[in-house]
Amino acid sequence: MSTPTPLAVTPKPPYYAVIFTSVRTPADGVGYGVTSDRMVELASGMLGFLGVESARGDDRVGITVSYWASLDAIRGWREHAEHRLAQQHGREKWYACYRLRIALVEVEYGTGTV
Amino acid sequence: MSTPTPLAVTPKPPYYAVIFTSVRTPADGVGYGVTSDRMVELASGMLGFLGVESARGDDRVGITVSYWASLDAIRGWREHAEHRLAQQHGREKWYACYRLRIALVEVEYGTGTV
Repeated sequence: MSTPTPLAVTPKPPYYAVIFTSVRTPADGVGYGVTSDRMVELASGMLGFLGVESARGDDRVGITVSYWASLDAIRGWREHAEHRLAQQHGREKWYACYRLRIALVEVEYGTGTV
Repeated sequence: MSTPTPLAVTPKPPYYAVIFTSVRTPADGVGYGVTSDRMVELASGMLGFLGVESARGDDRVGITVSYWASLDAIRGWREHAEHRLAQQHGREKWYACYRLRIALVEVEYGTGTV
């Protein structure tokens, strides 16, 4: 019997990771939550999307790592019109600060998935 | 006046990221917290350590991303005796499942830091 896991089940490397780390402002919790869920739904339908993992603690620090087959796939996601609007709202009201890093995953191992 | 940030201030890429995603068991909250703090302290003193970011939500999903100057630096950290003991405890009691990915950061941008 396999147990569902919130961790992404990704293919054998190499593939790409987009590491998005942020500190939330206290502003607009409802709007942020709705948009955040919608972005996961939207990304999941994009060509080259491999998975996503996300966590945010009580200190407002959050990390979302999405996994992609190629830089072209990441570019397509970054430039998606609805995502661009969400990015703008993020910069204007949701995030006190953020960093975005694009990285080539070379090695993966672990337990508990598939 | 600059504001302190919990986000890592890393040098210009390329450098390496270790993306550790996990689901915590309910076991041994105190022991886990003490060890987790100690691991950050220990890693921070390692040669080639560049920074760390961490978040865990109420759903027990956590992500810690540590940044390193080289694969050799990551190897040194992985094989540190005290860290190896913590890894063993992690596998045995703290984590229901985990994934570890080693990735080469090629691009970084953002706001709000330094």
